[in-house]
Amino acid sequence: MHDVSANQAGSPLLQKYRQVRALSDRLCAPLEIEDYLIQTMADVSPPKWHLAHVSWFFETFLLVPFLPGYELFHPDYGYCFNSYYEAVGQRHPRPQRGLLSRPTVKDIYAYRAAVDEAMAELIEQQAGNRDVEALVVLGLHHEQQHQELLLTDIKHILATNPLRPAYRRDLAQVERVKLLPLGYQSFAGGIVEIGREVDGLASRFEDFAFDNEGPRHRVFVEDFALGDRLITNGEYLEFMTDGGYQQAQHWLSEGWGMVQREDWNAPLYWEQRDGDWWVMTLAGLQPVNLAEPVCHVSGYEADAFARWAGKRLPTEAEWELASRGIDSEGNFVDQDHLHPQPAAEATKGSGLRQMYGDVWEWTQSSYSPYPGYRAAEGAIGEYNGKFMCNQLVLRGGSCATSLSHIRSTYRNFFPPSARWQFSGIRLAA
Amino acid sequence: MHDVSANQAGSPLLQKYRQVRALSDRLCAPLEIEDYLIQTMADVSPPKWHLAHVSWFFETFLLVPFLPGYELFHPDYGYCFNSYYEAVGQRHPRPQRGLLSRPTVKDIYAYRAAVDEAMAELIEQQAGNRDVEALVVLGLHHEQQHQELLLTDIKHILATNPLRPAYRRDLAQVERVKLLPLGYQSFAGGIVEIGREVDGLASRFEDFAFDNEGPRHRVFVEDFALGDRLITNGEYLEFMTDGGYQQAQHWLSEGWGMVQREDWNAPLYWEQRDGDWWVMTLAGLQPVNLAEPVCHVSGYEADAFARWAGKRLPTEAEWELASRGIDSEGNFVDQDHLHPQPAAEATKGSGLRQMYGDVWEWTQSSYSPYPGYRAAEGAIGEYNGKFMCNQLVLRGGSCATSLSHIRSTYRNFFPPSARWQFSGIRLAA
Amino acid sequence: MHDVSANQAGSPLLQKYRQVRALSDRLCAPLEIEDYLIQTMADVSPPKWHLAHVSWFFETFLLVPFLPGYELFHPDYGYCFNSYYEAVGQRHPRPQRGLLSRPTVKDIYAYRAAVDEAMAELIEQQAGNRDVEALVVLGLHHEQQHQELLLTDIKHILATNPLRPAYRRDLAQVERVKLLPLGYQSFAGGIVEIGREVDGLASRFEDFAFDNEGPRHRVFVEDFALGDRLITNGEYLEFMTDGGYQQAQHWLSEGWGMVQREDWNAPLYWEQRDGDWWVMTLAGLQPVNLAEPVCHVSGYEADAFARWAGKRLPTEAEWELASRGIDSEGNFVDQDHLHPQPAAEATKGSGLRQMYGDVWEWTQSSYSPYPGYRAAEGAIGEYNGKFMCNQLVLRGGSCATSLSHIRSTYRNFFPPSARWQFSGIRLAA
Amino acid sequence: MHDVSANQAGSPLLQKYRQVRALSDRLCAPLEIEDYLIQTMADVSPPKWHLAHVSWFFETFLLVPFLPGYELFHPDYGYCFNSYYEAVGQRHPRPQRGLLSRPTVKDIYAYRAAVDEAMAELIEQQAGNRDVEALVVLGLHHEQQHQELLLTDIKHILATNPLRPAYRRDLAQVERVKLLPLGYQSFAGGIVEIGREVDGLASRFEDFAFDNEGPRHRVFVEDFALGDRLITNGEYLEFMTDGGYQQAQHWLSEGWGMVQREDWNAPLYWEQRDGDWWVMTLAGLQPVNLAEPVCHVSGYEADAFARWAGKRLPTEAEWELASRGIDSEGNFVDQDHLHPQPAAEATKGSGLRQMYGDVWEWTQSSYSPYPGYRAAEGAIGEYNGKFMCNQLVLRGGSCATSLSHIRSTYRNFFPPSARWQFSGIRLAA
Repeated sequence: MHDVSANQAGSPLLQKYRQVRALSDRLCAPLEIEDYLIQTMADVSPPKWHLAHVSWFFETFLLVPFLPGYELFHPDYGYCFNSYYEAVGQRHPRPQRGLLSRPTVKDIYAYRAAVDEAMAELIEQQAGNRDVEALVVLGLHHEQQHQELLLTDIKHILATNPLRPAYRRDLAQVERVKLLPLGYQSFAGGIVEIGREVDGLASRFEDFAFDNEGPRHRVFVEDFALGDRLITNGEYLEFMTDGGYQQAQHWLSEGWGMVQREDWNAPLYWEQRDGDWWVMTLAGLQPVNLAEPVCHVSGYEADAFARWAGKRLPTEAEWELASRGIDSEGNFVDQDHLHPQPAAEATKGSGLRQMYGDVWEWTQSSYSPYPGYRAAEGAIGEYNGKFMCNQLVLRGGSCATSLSHIRSTYRNFFPPSARWQFSGIRLAA
Repeated sequence: MHDVSANQAGSPLLQKYRQVRALSDRLCAPLEIEDYLIQTMADVSPPKWHLAHVSWFFETFLLVPFLPGYELFHPDYGYCFNSYYEAVGQRHPRPQRGLLSRPTVKDIYAYRAAVDEAMAELIEQQAGNRDVEALVVLGLHHEQQHQELLLTDIKHILATNPLRPAYRRDLAQVERVKLLPLGYQSFAGGIVEIGREVDGLASRFEDFAFDNEGPRHRVFVEDFALGDRLITNGEYLEFMTDGGYQQAQHWLSEGWGMVQREDWNAPLYWEQRDGDWWVMTLAGLQPVNLAEPVCHVSGYEADAFARWAGKRLPTEAEWELASRGIDSEGNFVDQDHLHPQPAAEATKGSGLRQMYGDVWEWTQSSYSPYPGYRAAEGAIGEYNGKFMCNQLVLRGGSCATSLSHIRSTYRNFFPPSARWQFSGIRLAA
Repeated sequence: MHDVSANQAGSPLLQKYRQVRALSDRLCAPLEIEDYLIQTMADVSPPKWHLAHVSWFFETFLLVPFLPGYELFHPDYGYCFNSYYEAVGQRHPRPQRGLLSRPTVKDIYAYRAAVDEAMAELIEQQAGNRDVEALVVLGLHHEQQHQELLLTDIKHILATNPLRPAYRRDLAQVERVKLLPLGYQSFAGGIVEIGREVDGLASRFEDFAFDNEGPRHRVFVEDFALGDRLITNGEYLEFMTDGGYQQAQHWLSEGWGMVQREDWNAPLYWEQRDGDWWVMTLAGLQPVNLAEPVCHVSGYEADAFARWAGKRLPTEAEWELASRGIDSEGNFVDQDHLHPQPAAEATKGSGLRQMYGDVWEWTQSSYSPYPGYRAAEGAIGEYNGKFMCNQLVLRGGSCATSLSHIRSTYRNFFPPSARWQFSGIRLAA
Repeated sequence: MHDVSANQAGSPLLQKYRQVRALSDRLCAPLEIEDYLIQTMADVSPPKWHLAHVSWFFETFLLVPFLPGYELFHPDYGYCFNSYYEAVGQRHPRPQRGLLSRPTVKDIYAYRAAVDEAMAELIEQQAGNRDVEALVVLGLHHEQQHQELLLTDIKHILATNPLRPAYRRDLAQVERVKLLPLGYQSFAGGIVEIGREVDGLASRFEDFAFDNEGPRHRVFVEDFALGDRLITNGEYLEFMTDGGYQQAQHWLSEGWGMVQREDWNAPLYWEQRDGDWWVMTLAGLQPVNLAEPVCHVSGYEADAFARWAGKRLPTEAEWELASRGIDSEGNFVDQDHLHPQPAAEATKGSGLRQMYGDVWEWTQSSYSPYPGYRAAEGAIGEYNGKFMCNQLVLRGGSCATSLSHIRSTYRNFFPPSARWQFSGIRLAA
């Protein structure tokens, strides 16, 4: 118990630091060493790369500039573990992250430990330095993002394997709940403010928002209605059996190109065995549960489903407006299901269920800068702004997101072709 | 003179039909037979394909359904000249359009003549049938779009050729005008209506709008300012000499990837010979004129230039708002320059110059459906809606656009990587 | 008649020059201008490119070095029409030959005429200069090779077209002859000499051989037997119906990879319509004639067929040994069938039929240098030697070869994957 | 010591089995678990795949058919570890071998142990069954081939890593020996017999030859001379500094294409740091030793070097003839250098040095079937015959080959583009 009490020592920020970092370790605990290395496609990074990269982030943006006398843990790690920060120098090509056996997993845990030790020193030393604290907080939210990627990448790694190994066998089984009928809840439009005033980086973890969530600004929204729960596997199966994947008229042109080229005929991870649909989950291969939210669909599939259903996807402004006042409770990584759950009770204070957690909800909104948005100077400015092109916004978090990471204004973004995230569908009308 | 008077006979719609169709012939008149066949990249179609495709459009959507007894000109032309209408059947793969020597250019002119004859009959026969007339009008605006593509594709074909042949030597030379300084004009924001009420297809040519321009709807726009003319070659050259193509910080991540992969270091069609910059034009290779609007830049380059300049690209709502009340006069295909011209006098009724014509202006707005947009049923519904993904909106028309084709609400769209259109830059602040 | 008598004037070499050059024109006479431009795959060159390239060969290797005062017809043609001579300078990339509309077909005929005129002057001026005459002779054999390529490339261009246009409708129809049974003729082995002493280039057209045919050298050949005629479509169809394209055991590993990747299930140009097999020919689409030699098979297919039949392909030494003393009569381009013909009478002086003409016969011999082979210095040395890698030797000429171009020692070569040549199968045992 | 004495028990074949299998374990002993998983290019297989595949070979071709009651270790291992045996069923795609984290390294060692146990039982049970014994012997030579691949693949894996980790630090350092001048030894030609009579598979390990080494047959060879040692790094560096990689005239056309496309300017694993050449070895990065044989050159480079030197590569018949009567002593895996060594004393009984071991010697001979060669029926017949296309023969073994695996008639084969094997150059004249 010595360690635990030691970890509880220190400032609130240091405690937060330890708490967030510990989750990365916990998420990797079920892995074999071999699982840490695999890159099944360019989008996926090996788990050991994630573990090293988030440490490199602290080392590069905090330890090197702010901790006097700090020496790099290894001179080549910058090259190996820089993701995309052009301002910080050359880096190993992304599609080749799976070609590196060294540094070993053990080396990387040693790297993490060394960074943690130095960070503890730095955090105490610089207590009250709001600039430093803000960067620590940014690093923690950055690590939370990679924790979600760890889970989605591990899932892809294990699902690609012909043995279909389970990540964990001890995840709570999904209870078969009675499916609630889909209804729509109406909202009045008008000029509304969305986004959040972001004046530099917050120095308290709880106050944090990414720069892409601001500035807070006015938009005009027409009256709209939102589906009161997520679309289920059962509903999606209707689309499939109605020929959804065979009929061009439901699809965006690029989506239809993907369907043809990639032979899509079901969500990612679904496979048919002897006529029944199964789905690969972090608990291994399972029969498809019709009451669960459909998951691992691309933006193209979400859009095609909506058109087939005579509806549409929400805009991000509609989603944000509707989410106001709803507690961000839900099925998050904290609940340790690691799989979307059927809609049960209405979310507190609202007729809308499953707004937070379970699956990221595709919107029809392109990921664009809010009016007045300007990226920060230097490497940190590369965090969000340079990706504002050819992506769609997703909202609400998933079963792989941390509760402390999500909020009403949070803008996640992926290209409409992406399927390996926990992404699903809520309709608008 | 018999023919001319014959052509002036008939209903106003028939006269319009003949007038629009005649421009396609006129644009192709300077071509060698050989030029009609070439496809220099997947985006480019051979001129003969354009000529046939627009006739196929009239044949498929008007002659076959509405002209009793009409027989297909050739049973295989549907396969050869359908562009992307899934509902109408199989088609020749787009990147292989340049592999077809037959039908010959002569065959295709015969096809055009046969379609024209039947269309004349149909237009007279169905006078007053508003559904038929609306499809004729759609077909004419469709042909106008392909007339612009004819010019941009011919330019690409000739510029790819090591001989750098000129399309025409008789284009009016650009007068060297004194460059006006760049100013900004301010506009008040608020709730504004943009777009246009589109209730089905217009049956008069002059009333026409594409479905993607509607519905008319309210948006909230903050106060803004717009550059009072287009960015010039001279200004763009400053960006270049300041290292614009070498510095990642100005660029969207995807744009920077293009710069690296494609070795971009100047706008398309620029080439350096003995230290001087030249540019391939439809009048052949010419020295770069610093006073002319920069042209053939991608959306990525437009965005990087704006960021380098400390400004931004306008949104399409801002552009539309600012364009209100400005006559859509300008440098269009009708002026027969076929090249952007330096800004001279202020456009009538406004401090803004060059809003219409010269070059399409990149906006920062993703090409998305307006609220309430719904594509038509059937093949015609494939015209616009299915492309609302991963493209940016461009506004204002170019020197290759017909004056009668453009308007304040017109939404052109291309992927941000596209450079072979007459596309340029207007800044906003 | 003036022109004809003029053409008969001059030295024998000049007459030969005119005669060979005239065939290129005759082969292109049935083409539409459009057909001259198309490049359906990297292996295929546009007919106009062939016409220009063979003239460039004379210009580059004869007119420029040997005709005093000769000026290049066009400064850029060297760049456009150099095929692969590194020593002569930069050139247009091979896969982009189909992107050039200019120079036009008319320009290229003017180029040919100018080269012909200058060549006539040169040939008379340099009469008796054996070095110059040898280069002229090389240029003529070079043009004969391109004449065969003209036909195979034209066939590919027209067969790729969905309209399946015929090259000529006036080719002699194939008579249905009774199929002779396949027998085998035995040959005694031992030490034999093959190849031909090649001491520089011959200065008489009739004495010519390529450098790769020499030196004459000894090889040891075991006793062997050769099939006394070519394999027919009927026999090949048995292989097909017996599952030849579905059973890996007949195939070289690379061949099986091609079958899978390219979905090969019949020779090139075969297509099934309503259950019947048709084949695209230079006379258009025709029913498959079972008595004809199978044609347009790759080396992989030839090898797989042989293995399925319990036989093997001949070596080039066996073929050459067996061909001795057989007149090189046969079905050549001179016969104007332009299609392989069923075996009829035995070839004069031998039980072997179809040894020359009809189809090139795949051997199992890799295209390697004969012992003591050394390529010439300079650009001419690039003609053959640098391709001695990853290719198989074919022997005997085809229905697209000139009679005056072929001989017993002639070594043609293509990668085993190539199918667009007139290539077929003779078995050995 | 219990284990060792246990391992010395059993029949000579069982002892041989244990001895060969033990080397695989020994070669992998220096690896980190992470190193076992990596596939740096399609040609490379992860070490764990090699370990599993060779066990799968014994399981599939011996245990399943011949050991009564044997049950598959795992139902999916056949799919995972079949390399290319079409007759045995579907298999995991070769380029994706590096995507599999499971089965783990521990699982695979358990697989090996289970196979070893069952094989021991089988070998004793079937003692005297020559068919079974012959398959065991084949399996052992198969494993020896994969042992060489293990080393070449491990080298590629470690050399690809930016950290340039050493495989072993305890390899004997290369002594700087005085370079012997290169001489040529002459041989008389004539009709000679090469190859080896192969009548089915040998049932004694020492009698083994692969089917591709037979039948023994007569060939005619002209008089020739062979370089009396391998080409050194120093000699190769002269080629480099003389512009070898910049001058097309030395190269086969395909080789020159590779040089351009892949930016080759030195052998694989060479890198220039501060003007000095270093080379990655299994002992880590080392300065290039000019006296050592050049290694990791492709067939294209070997051929270009020979042409630059005014010589040529030997044929495989010449090499075999010259190797007669030379003891196959040399620098093999048994010597544990794992790197080519400078030529020292002449090989016993010959003026030729380094004929065996050090590096595989590229010949100019295409890998073709010997006259009368016929592959065995069934899956075992896929071992060699189906690869006789587009590859060159290499002779003599390398520092990664087992002494007991090599012989005068041994034919190794790789495409001329391959560089990751220990392959070098001996000249002929």
